[in-house]
Amino acid sequence: MDAAALKVAADTVWVLITAFLVFWMNAGFALLESGLCQSKNAVNILAKNFIVFAISSLAFWFVGFGMMFGDGNAFVGLNGWLLAGVDNSPAMAADYKGVFTSLNWTGVPLEAKFFFQLVFAGTAATIVSGAVAERIRFISFIVFSFVLVAVIYPIAGHWCWGGGFLATAAQGSKAFFRDFAGSTVVHSIGGWAAIAGVMILGPRNGKYRKDGSVQPIPGHSMALATLGTFILWLGWFGFNPGSTMAADVAGIASVALNTNMAAAAGCLSATAVAWKVLGKPDLSMILNGTLAGLVAITAPCYWVGPGSSIIIGLLAGVLVVFGVLFFDRIHLDDPVGALSVHLLNGIFGTLCVGLFASRNDVAGLFFGGGATQLLIQIKGALAVGAFVFAVSAACWLLIKVTLGIRVSPEEELEGLDKGEHGMEAYPDISFIASLTRSDGQGARP
Amino acid sequence: MDAAALKVAADTVWVLITAFLVFWMNAGFALLESGLCQSKNAVNILAKNFIVFAISSLAFWFVGFGMMFGDGNAFVGLNGWLLAGVDNSPAMAADYKGVFTSLNWTGVPLEAKFFFQLVFAGTAATIVSGAVAERIRFISFIVFSFVLVAVIYPIAGHWCWGGGFLATAAQGSKAFFRDFAGSTVVHSIGGWAAIAGVMILGPRNGKYRKDGSVQPIPGHSMALATLGTFILWLGWFGFNPGSTMAADVAGIASVALNTNMAAAAGCLSATAVAWKVLGKPDLSMILNGTLAGLVAITAPCYWVGPGSSIIIGLLAGVLVVFGVLFFDRIHLDDPVGALSVHLLNGIFGTLCVGLFASRNDVAGLFFGGGATQLLIQIKGALAVGAFVFAVSAACWLLIKVTLGIRVSPEEELEGLDKGEHGMEAYPDISFIASLTRSDGQGARP
Amino acid sequence: MDAAALKVAADTVWVLITAFLVFWMNAGFALLESGLCQSKNAVNILAKNFIVFAISSLAFWFVGFGMMFGDGNAFVGLNGWLLAGVDNSPAMAADYKGVFTSLNWTGVPLEAKFFFQLVFAGTAATIVSGAVAERIRFISFIVFSFVLVAVIYPIAGHWCWGGGFLATAAQGSKAFFRDFAGSTVVHSIGGWAAIAGVMILGPRNGKYRKDGSVQPIPGHSMALATLGTFILWLGWFGFNPGSTMAADVAGIASVALNTNMAAAAGCLSATAVAWKVLGKPDLSMILNGTLAGLVAITAPCYWVGPGSSIIIGLLAGVLVVFGVLFFDRIHLDDPVGALSVHLLNGIFGTLCVGLFASRNDVAGLFFGGGATQLLIQIKGALAVGAFVFAVSAACWLLIKVTLGIRVSPEEELEGLDKGEHGMEAYPDISFIASLTRSDGQGARP
Repeated sequence: MDAAALKVAADTVWVLITAFLVFWMNAGFALLESGLCQSKNAVNILAKNFIVFAISSLAFWFVGFGMMFGDGNAFVGLNGWLLAGVDNSPAMAADYKGVFTSLNWTGVPLEAKFFFQLVFAGTAATIVSGAVAERIRFISFIVFSFVLVAVIYPIAGHWCWGGGFLATAAQGSKAFFRDFAGSTVVHSIGGWAAIAGVMILGPRNGKYRKDGSVQPIPGHSMALATLGTFILWLGWFGFNPGSTMAADVAGIASVALNTNMAAAAGCLSATAVAWKVLGKPDLSMILNGTLAGLVAITAPCYWVGPGSSIIIGLLAGVLVVFGVLFFDRIHLDDPVGALSVHLLNGIFGTLCVGLFASRNDVAGLFFGGGATQLLIQIKGALAVGAFVFAVSAACWLLIKVTLGIRVSPEEELEGLDKGEHGMEAYPDISFIASLTRSDGQGARP
Repeated sequence: MDAAALKVAADTVWVLITAFLVFWMNAGFALLESGLCQSKNAVNILAKNFIVFAISSLAFWFVGFGMMFGDGNAFVGLNGWLLAGVDNSPAMAADYKGVFTSLNWTGVPLEAKFFFQLVFAGTAATIVSGAVAERIRFISFIVFSFVLVAVIYPIAGHWCWGGGFLATAAQGSKAFFRDFAGSTVVHSIGGWAAIAGVMILGPRNGKYRKDGSVQPIPGHSMALATLGTFILWLGWFGFNPGSTMAADVAGIASVALNTNMAAAAGCLSATAVAWKVLGKPDLSMILNGTLAGLVAITAPCYWVGPGSSIIIGLLAGVLVVFGVLFFDRIHLDDPVGALSVHLLNGIFGTLCVGLFASRNDVAGLFFGGGATQLLIQIKGALAVGAFVFAVSAACWLLIKVTLGIRVSPEEELEGLDKGEHGMEAYPDISFIASLTRSDGQGARP
Repeated sequence: MDAAALKVAADTVWVLITAFLVFWMNAGFALLESGLCQSKNAVNILAKNFIVFAISSLAFWFVGFGMMFGDGNAFVGLNGWLLAGVDNSPAMAADYKGVFTSLNWTGVPLEAKFFFQLVFAGTAATIVSGAVAERIRFISFIVFSFVLVAVIYPIAGHWCWGGGFLATAAQGSKAFFRDFAGSTVVHSIGGWAAIAGVMILGPRNGKYRKDGSVQPIPGHSMALATLGTFILWLGWFGFNPGSTMAADVAGIASVALNTNMAAAAGCLSATAVAWKVLGKPDLSMILNGTLAGLVAITAPCYWVGPGSSIIIGLLAGVLVVFGVLFFDRIHLDDPVGALSVHLLNGIFGTLCVGLFASRNDVAGLFFGGGATQLLIQIKGALAVGAFVFAVSAACWLLIKVTLGIRVSPEEELEGLDKGEHGMEAYPDISFIASLTRSDGQGARP
């Protein structure tokens, strides 16, 4: 085996293992979201987060990958269905784009690149799940997820990563929209799709009192929520460093470190702000602060150093606490804080490329962020946001008038587990609760 | 370091990391099985699934590996005890078989290959655990697990993977029994050992009513069960792609993708069938459908494409739902669905090599499945099944008449956690339950 | 890309992936510790174990790494703050120490090595968390953790791994203190810091009765504790094999196997001893026995074979059971058994280098353990222990007289979750408990 083939082997191992880590984030979202919701809806949330990756797998294989990375125009890819061999996905390393000759690949195999892109697409869909939890119909979520991964995500993704109009520099310029691992492409797309759903669904019954004040609805298991966040932190070591798509020595080490420092800083600043504002260090804020730092570093992680990463994380942690309070104030009911984590910090992270970038990219070209780049980042974030929000809203509305989008008030009160799935997550607890009531109906908080 | 040594390094890193992922499946089985059983037996199931890998580690090191991969005859290996240097394990890559010279290995070190094979052997034993749960004695399970990993699994494994009679082509033929990552070797062996145990143990008290109808006994935590299944899905990215035993670029990317597509398809078809047949999308069926797809793709994963993988997964997901209903109808009480997942789909996956294989193997030899291959697969599945079932049944019977196999009816009612381990998994819940009863005994569902 | 660059790529991939696995141990400690404590303190323990890695990340980046691996004297490193390029960390492979030239590294990048060392430093801090659980103030734990990772751990670590006086052979000798992956550096440092805290904090109220007998306080979720231990076992495959800091083929395979065999043996011997001594196979002893085996093999794992590893594990498993009973007898209240696992077995494992080492190290130098080496190991363990215990005790005392170290008796009774964080881990359970009491206050075990 020659050195070129060994390079391909190392790159492929790296791409696959980091993809496995990103796949693992599905478990993280499932636990975080179910932990932060009520036990009567736990089966439903777990089922949604589990099945959504299965749906994503088929949707992205049939059409999504082709629309995102196929040959086409500035707005959409138009071939490559069923993984038919077309591939315009971004090459972070020069020899990334593979061709199969006899028994060997001259670059990372298409199957590996597809799988890596698939786990990213799946992540965007799981982000929606949390924000619409505890009142959405199971079938309606499934249908929306399919459309998101098959059509909406790939089109916007094509713009940024598939050779579309945002990925192309204006003539005579080296500057184009940059989003290394997806603050915009994954997180803000998920966030825009989610906010459209939250607006059309409306809040959970009882969340906002008649006087407009907020009735907190605590989650049922902080152990699940914490474990979920640990899983996400771990998974991000696949998400960001894997986006090099190659065992690019300088890149992967630096990106891994930056990712960690932003997460740590986000954790600490959110803790401090929550302690100050809410009076005590609320664990859900500690967790969401970490995720905020991770989302924010995702776009700029390749082009900054650990010092900048810490600053980005600190700002993200502050942003998420005030974000959670803000969305509650405007009565957008997001049970898990997904809008603050993924939408706000997805946008913020995208802008950080302009604000903080200071390192050359992998090709050695000077790349220093700056005002021009910041403007490009703002335009890109707005373009993606406008498109995803509009199409998602249309899609949610269509679902609303056809399938129906929301469970009945009775089912919402009793819990979606019984209504949608005919089962309970923790039968012991329900049984014991039933013993405490003379009518035998049980009390469920 | 020259290219040959670098190749060995890449292969060894790949084998070890995928082995770690397969080790992680122990946690998946522990959570899936305990989640699908009652809380009064959770400590017992967790303890069984934890200790079984420790037992496997010693059993396989002392004798198992030698019987499986030692030099011997067509039926059993007869040397290589205590990892003494003998190794006839399958080389999926030409340079797989290593020799230690001075400070370097010319191939993947024996320790790495042993460790990889060990985590597979451990998986077979954990499969048994779920099927016999909630009524087996702790010590009896330990003894059976030791025999399974020390003797039964290695002998049948020798036939398929260690140079035994199933692994050898008839003269003038290239066709022999093929099981890439163990639909037969790991999953159906586990399944056959389990069904023998289930038959000899009998069902849990109260599972089948006097009129023959089924009394459902719901599991105590769908959160644990779902997390367990996520872990297993992740672990399978070690199980199947790691079975290349080399950083074989084309192989590992293709196998990883096929594994995922079959899992996704199994998830969706089981969901659809359960929705239709049971009226609602039952989460335990969603989970078991995914596992069914994973088990079924395990044998053919190297020789099919993603399209075939989807079809295999779809069929597996259908099979598992009807399998669960079927085993209940014939009163084989399997609390977690292990027989439907591992036995039925282990056999089905083995046959899929004949039905769907269409890609050359790593040596570039044409390999197209077909009727001849299908016949070989059927014969192999039957031979392994007959042997494992007969010897396992004899072993279970011997345990029954010596140690005793089943806890007392009183202990079964109270829960094995108190009886076998003198402790409880969730003391809070028991305590609260006790408060709801005037007699202070507590009520446990 | 030439062979040298490929070697660096393979090494860097290995270092990063194993570092990710060690990072994952944070989740393991969080679940193990919260599972073995009461539900009313679960949020607090989860929060401590989550935030401690964030604190460690900043502390080790600002000053810790410099004090540990900077240029300095025999006692402490004195430069390299903010990862400024200095690096005297141990090179297990000759080409480990990297220099950045143009776009490439000639060895593993400093960022990767820093990240690997950071996750180790974080582990030391999480060990403390369990021992002081259920009565320490949140802020006080945070402050101590910062000091531990910023100052105490790096200084003692400098002695052993950073070129300090323990890492240097006497003139004319090849013998120096050896601790491959940190039985002393990570586990006993964590253990010594913990025992100082336990002594100064005092036991939980109600743990020891007036007659001196022990009132057991069972943990609230054996499912969390078991999952946590599985995570730790998995993480150790990063901890020990990753400490080669290179894709050193013979080393990583051997170390991975040894690590597993010691864990398995520790699991089985602790089970057997607990069964004999306590009457039943207690699951918490099964788990702690496994961890004991893992801690004990950590120092000698590179220089022994699997047979010795089994013996080391067997002894460690015995040691941990009697250790738990011993610490309870002398009224050092350690809710999770951290002192027995990390302190006792950290010391024991360190001595095992002298007792069992029989293999050459990576440079091919003969290294056979023996009496001289054993003496060196004893001296090193004592030196580190005396320093860490003394400085930790001083630090805990300083915290006690300034911030206060312990929550109020009322808060301890009600649980730290409400007192420190204003929330509960499982609101359902509290709510149901409240229904069983006429006064509406709820009963919490």
